[in-house]
Amino acid sequence: MLVAASELMIERSSIEISLSDIAQKSGANAALVKYHFGNKDGLLLALLERNAATELSNLEYLLAQPITPTAKLKLHIGGIIRAYYRFPYMNRLIHYLLHETNTAAADEVSKFFVAPLLDFHRRLLADGVSLGEFRATDPVLFYTSLIGACDHLFFGRHAMSRATGVGPVTDEVCRQYIKHMETLICGGILTQVEEAAAAG
Amino acid sequence: MLVAASELMIERSSIEISLSDIAQKSGANAALVKYHFGNKDGLLLALLERNAATELSNLEYLLAQPITPTAKLKLHIGGIIRAYYRFPYMNRLIHYLLHETNTAAADEVSKFFVAPLLDFHRRLLADGVSLGEFRATDPVLFYTSLIGACDHLFFGRHAMSRATGVGPVTDEVCRQYIKHMETLICGGILTQVEEAAAAG
Repeated sequence: MLVAASELMIERSSIEISLSDIAQKSGANAALVKYHFGNKDGLLLALLERNAATELSNLEYLLAQPITPTAKLKLHIGGIIRAYYRFPYMNRLIHYLLHETNTAAADEVSKFFVAPLLDFHRRLLADGVSLGEFRATDPVLFYTSLIGACDHLFFGRHAMSRATGVGPVTDEVCRQYIKHMETLICGGILTQVEEAAAAG
Repeated sequence: MLVAASELMIERSSIEISLSDIAQKSGANAALVKYHFGNKDGLLLALLERNAATELSNLEYLLAQPITPTAKLKLHIGGIIRAYYRFPYMNRLIHYLLHETNTAAADEVSKFFVAPLLDFHRRLLADGVSLGEFRATDPVLFYTSLIGACDHLFFGRHAMSRATGVGPVTDEVCRQYIKHMETLICGGILTQVEEAAAAG
């Protein structure tokens, strides 16, 4: 049923799907779908939780690799952007569950998505700082800027395409944004010369 | 009436206000409010347009100053974050108008908010690159990462506070985030030594 829900949301580019749509797509009885998930929000929450669990187990794996914190950070940036791209509804789902449903659903999302991701950033930054690779950086502020920037490629894009003829997010745009974010987060926008001057 | 609407949204920390609330607060006749703005979305759009116009005229002023593009970029980062902080409803309003109302309202927001801001980034980046201060950076990707990161401090914050006991956005948090974003956007997270090594 989760697979059916996921496919439906991708097909329709929308999270507006009903329990009966899902029942029809999965071949299950509508009453059974209702029994399992309670209501539509329950199903959406279960779906997001499943996707989040996959992504978060990748983070643990990444942290354990014998590579530098800088290399891990770059892989992580690519990982977030690709996850949003692979599950285009994930971003809308997170926004919907956090802001438009009841507090219990929002608490769940915070617990299984926000908290583990923040914890990953905290550990990665601590590693990078202790190895002398990263500047001392507050993990909460870092989380906010990195996740906000990645999220906005998907959430903000259709506002931009309306305004400016910017096209939709394609494979190629994803690759460009990963490259852009790696460069920006690691080295900033200043040229080497300028940065050395600013540092005195 | 726009002032009344603005004050009401700040008081209630919500964009859920009705035309009759606004009429009551402003002392105007409810029919007059309706006549002026058509409906609630019309009023919200007018309010956002007024705030956006103020912020955008500041951008033109900033661009004309006799300071370096790097200094302009830093002032701009502080400007965005403070504008969101001053008008806490602005962020929710933009999301609401772009994603949950009709296409005409979303087109309006794109036209008076997204397009001019993107144009400002385009010109600022071109100046910075031609003066040798900035790396060559795609303006659309830059817009996405900067606006996404600033926006997320306000949009993502209550998800984080639920997950982790992170507090609300105060004056002090705003100042910290401005400092964090200036450092991150200008210089990135890598230490000087590490960056020189990465550059070969």
